[in-house]
Amino acid sequence: MHICSTDIDNLDKLTRVNLINSLSGFKSANLIGTADKRGQENLSIVSSVFHIGANPPLIGMIIRPHSVPRHTLENIIETGVYTINHVHNEIIEQAHQTSARYDKHISEFDAVGLQAQYKGSCKAPFVLQSKLKIAVKLMSTQTIELNQTELVIGQITDIYLEDDLAYCDDGFVDLERLNTVALSGLDRYHSTSAITRLSYAKCDKPLSHITIPPKVKDQKEP
Amino acid sequence: MHICSTDIDNLDKLTRVNLINSLSGFKSANLIGTADKRGQENLSIVSSVFHIGANPPLIGMIIRPHSVPRHTLENIIETGVYTINHVHNEIIEQAHQTSARYDKHISEFDAVGLQAQYKGSCKAPFVLQSKLKIAVKLMSTQTIELNQTELVIGQITDIYLEDDLAYCDDGFVDLERLNTVALSGLDRYHSTSAITRLSYAKCDKPLSHITIPPKVKDQKEP
Repeated sequence: MHICSTDIDNLDKLTRVNLINSLSGFKSANLIGTADKRGQENLSIVSSVFHIGANPPLIGMIIRPHSVPRHTLENIIETGVYTINHVHNEIIEQAHQTSARYDKHISEFDAVGLQAQYKGSCKAPFVLQSKLKIAVKLMSTQTIELNQTELVIGQITDIYLEDDLAYCDDGFVDLERLNTVALSGLDRYHSTSAITRLSYAKCDKPLSHITIPPKVKDQKEP
Repeated sequence: MHICSTDIDNLDKLTRVNLINSLSGFKSANLIGTADKRGQENLSIVSSVFHIGANPPLIGMIIRPHSVPRHTLENIIETGVYTINHVHNEIIEQAHQTSARYDKHISEFDAVGLQAQYKGSCKAPFVLQSKLKIAVKLMSTQTIELNQTELVIGQITDIYLEDDLAYCDDGFVDLERLNTVALSGLDRYHSTSAITRLSYAKCDKPLSHITIPPKVKDQKEP
């Protein structure tokens, strides 16, 4: 099946949105927690969180214009901080429901049945139920002129992992142990099964399969 | 477990890379096909392809500086076109092996055992073995000053789907039918199992579970 530019142009809006959203492959599913200066909380599911770099530890996301997460963007700009919280298999419906167009004075935490949690000095709320939570300091926002979406880049300042055993001694986090889900298209949620972990690729050496290394906690408590 | 900024700063390089790469959640696994003006081919696995918008159909990716995919970036800038090819469960090792630092005159297609394929007027090679292939026209590149990575944005011009039955009549593409894989961290590959597909969220209406709609081809051939 070949779908060309003209075919894409001729699709009705919803079909086009479903199709194009499917093309990048599997996506991350994260809840972005924010609050405005007065403490009014907001929570929004975002499927476009992506890794930018490890040193400094930078993470990016795309926020669509004129859509619900606009409150998210306003709060991030107002306070300079936000949280990223992994969605796991037991909070999928609550997470998805945050994409409804709630008024700004309504906290999506209350509306969908998730609990805000404050940790350390971070002014933005975390999701209590999430098992991997990240505090992020805003570094830059910029408008992508091609379609007026916003690229938001932040630096990771704190990582909270609710299950020590998911942290491996080489730094790898076992997302399957946390039941973190993946997204496809706009609205389909998936659990995952590990196929393999592969060694660093070299030109002159065959790949090997890495067993997930011993967990940090295992070593501490032999 | 709490990992703060200082802890992150004190990690050795590899541990830090593994940890920070795990935090965004599941990632897409795509092979980027390019050629330079003289036709020298390059193929590179990229885990940072993400959706930017449906109208126009834009797709983004992050290319690290001074790393193997630099040939990819050079070719994209030289020719203005590239292909994005989903990685499925049967080509994981070949796909991962493209991340080795091959010299520019070596085609990763040959080195890893994948086959270049040309379709339509696209000057960049597709991966024959991939089941979902996209031709992309370069729209912009920009350096992210925070860490000197490059944000590459392209417009989708052609979509090739090797299994018509994966295309649903509402535009959704069934990635599980294509056995497209997800990535976590730097190097772990996962298959997926659908949990649910959820309806568009509204403030005043409960969510419903959507069954994957009848496939386009089913309707054409009743």
